[in-house]
Formats: sequence, structure tokens, C-alpha cells
Amino acid sequence: MKAKFSLIGASLLGALALAACEVINTADADAGDTVVEKPQFTADGQLVRPENYYEWIYVGSPLTPNALNGGEAGFPEFHNVYIQPSAYKIYKKTGVFPEGTIFYKELQLVLRSDHEDGSANEASGRGYFPGAFNGADVAVKDSARFPDTNGWGYFNFGHHAPPLAKTAKALPAEACAACHIASATKDMVFTKFYTRLQ
Amino acid sequence: MKAKFSLIGASLLGALALAACEVINTADADAGDTVVEKPQFTADGQLVRPENYYEWIYVGSPLTPNALNGGEAGFPEFHNVYIQPSAYKIYKKTGVFPEGTIFYKELQLVLRSDHEDGSANEASGRGYFPGAFNGADVAVKDSARFPDTNGWGYFNFGHHAPPLAKTAKALPAEACAACHIASATKDMVFTKFYTRLQ
Repeated sequence: MKAKFSLIGASLLGALALAACEVINTADADAGDTVVEKPQFTADGQLVRPENYYEWIYVGSPLTPNALNGGEAGFPEFHNVYIQPSAYKIYKKTGVFPEGTIFYKELQLVLRSDHEDGSANEASGRGYFPGAFNGADVAVKDSARFPDTNGWGYFNFGHHAPPLAKTAKALPAEACAACHIASATKDMVFTKFYTRLQ
Repeated sequence: MKAKFSLIGASLLGALALAACEVINTADADAGDTVVEKPQFTADGQLVRPENYYEWIYVGSPLTPNALNGGEAGFPEFHNVYIQPSAYKIYKKTGVFPEGTIFYKELQLVLRSDHEDGSANEASGRGYFPGAFNGADVAVKDSARFPDTNGWGYFNFGHHAPPLAKTAKALPAEACAACHIASATKDMVFTKFYTRLQ
């Protein structure tokens, strides 16, 4: 009887092991209703810059060349924008950006300019080609932390070559949120530029 | 004795289940030396278009606006380029693109043009903003299949709005490979445009 009981116990262990395995893989494959890659804040409320953002879902690259913006664009120059995979899945399912959503905007200069408009000639034609990384801006949805700016906080980690700051304080409303309030197309996000989010 | 044997058997099953689980998670987390997201070919050698490419690693967006290329750029207009996560990891470790590497080039028109150069004015400045998806080109490294073009095959799934073709034949050398042979910077890849691959 003891042997039979242990047999059931061992089988159960095997089944549990498989069930646990299932849970781990499901967490990877489907985020459910909660953001997995949560924003990290320091004790004094600064955002820790997510370093693995380049493994996230890329949603688009608005480009404001310095040469078309008086030599100094507000966001120089390619704005490569990423969202966490779990936030993306929840948004595609529900149409709502969940709490904890992060948009990471990686900035990148053009590689070279051959013309007054900042464009260059390459084998694929005349245009703009990505060059050196040049800073990062990050938006985080956290309605409890940022009630005064529609639930979103905005952070700048430098508009310059790496290394970038490791942490940053939320910027005042007039620095970023004001423009998102005035012009963004959906819940403070410029979804009109991110075809994959439409 | 039979019960004991079954007990061992059941425990072994549990251990095997955990071991299998380990293998699955390791494959997700670290590709080792082999590409996990392998290119799929039909029986007659056509490449199956990878539909989940947008979950891969994004490496850059050269932009050749139609307006700067006589109204018809060779690649209209944003070229958003992705590589499989496992191929990326192997490349970063070894400096070599492994067999089975795929580069997926997602094409995207500009959203709107307000000026002769194709640029538009938005809250973030004057520039080029991503709009409708407009086709895909794919490169695959498979030295056995494509010995005559330095081990890479090139595929076009349409330069137009979705839906795109589900499969495509490799293009003749003069269509794509010739230009990569002449101008690419590393193993047929234009790494000079992909800062993350430098």
C-alpha cells in the first residue's frame, strides 16, 4: 500500500512538473492581462532605463532630420520606438494600453549627409540611413504615479551618444506630456505613426 | 517488486518531464550555436514568408522616400529590418551570421507628404512619418541552397499593400545578390546601416 501510494505520489510529481513547465511556457507565450516586463523605479521614484528594450516589439521610426529642423531637431533624428511584448499582446487583445506599458524611443543620427536636406546617396537610392545611437526617451503608463498627466510619465536619458543615464526623474508636464495631451491620437500615444498599433 | 519498478519508472518520467522542460526553456533563452527560428521551404524550394518576424530583433530603418527617387524608389520607402533572436545572439557572440539567418525587410510608405521632398510637418518637427505597410523582401543564408550567390538567397513577397504572397521563389542573382556582392559591408549584409550589428 505504501509502494502504491508512493507510486501515485511520484506520478503526481511528474504531472506537477509538467504543469509547472506549462505555466512557464504560457507566461512566455501569452502575458494574460498583466504586463510581465514591469517598469522598475528606484526608492526615490526615478525610472531605471530598461536595457533590453531592443528585444521588445518595434512599432515604427518617425524621422525628423536635423537638416530639416534648423540644424537641431527636438528628437534627433530617427525615433525607433519599442513596446514590451506582453503590453503589445494585451493592447492587441483589448485595445487598451495596460498599466505598466513602456514605450522606449531609441534615437539615432543619420549616417551621413550628402545634400542640404540631410539625405545621402547609397546603392538603394537617395534617402536617410541610420547611424550612431544618440539618446533615449521613455514613456511609462502608471496611473497611480502620474495622475496629473493622464496616467503617463515621461523620461529623458540624454540626447547624446552612449553611455546614457541609468535612471531619470519624470519630466515636468510642460516638457513632454503637454504635447502628447495636445496631439497624440490614442491614450497619450501617437498611434497614427505606429501602423502596427492601429 | 513490480510496484517498486513502476515507482522508479514514474519518478523517471517526472525527471524526464523536467529535463524536457529545461530544454524548451533553454532554447527560448539561449540559442547555442544553431538558429532556432529556421527558414521554412516548400517541397519545390520556395521560401515560406515568416509571419511573426515583427517579434524578432529590429536592427534599423533605412528610408528612401519616393519623392527623392523620381517618384518610385527601389524600396518604397521605410525599410524596417529584423533578424531572428537566435541568429542575432549567435552573431553577437561569434561575429558570423550563422546558417539559417533570415533578414526580413518590412516596407512602409510615408504617412503623408506636405513638401516636394516627401516630408511632412508634425508636432515633433518636419520629417518622414511611417504609414501603410507596403511589401516585404527577405534574405536567407543557406550555403547549400545558394552556393552561386555567396550563400544567400533573396526573395520578394510583393511591393504593395497587404496581403503579401505566402511563398516566393529565390530571385535571380542580378535582381538582388549582385548589389549585395558589390556594396554590402559584411557577408552580403549592409551592416553599415545596422548600428546594432556593428
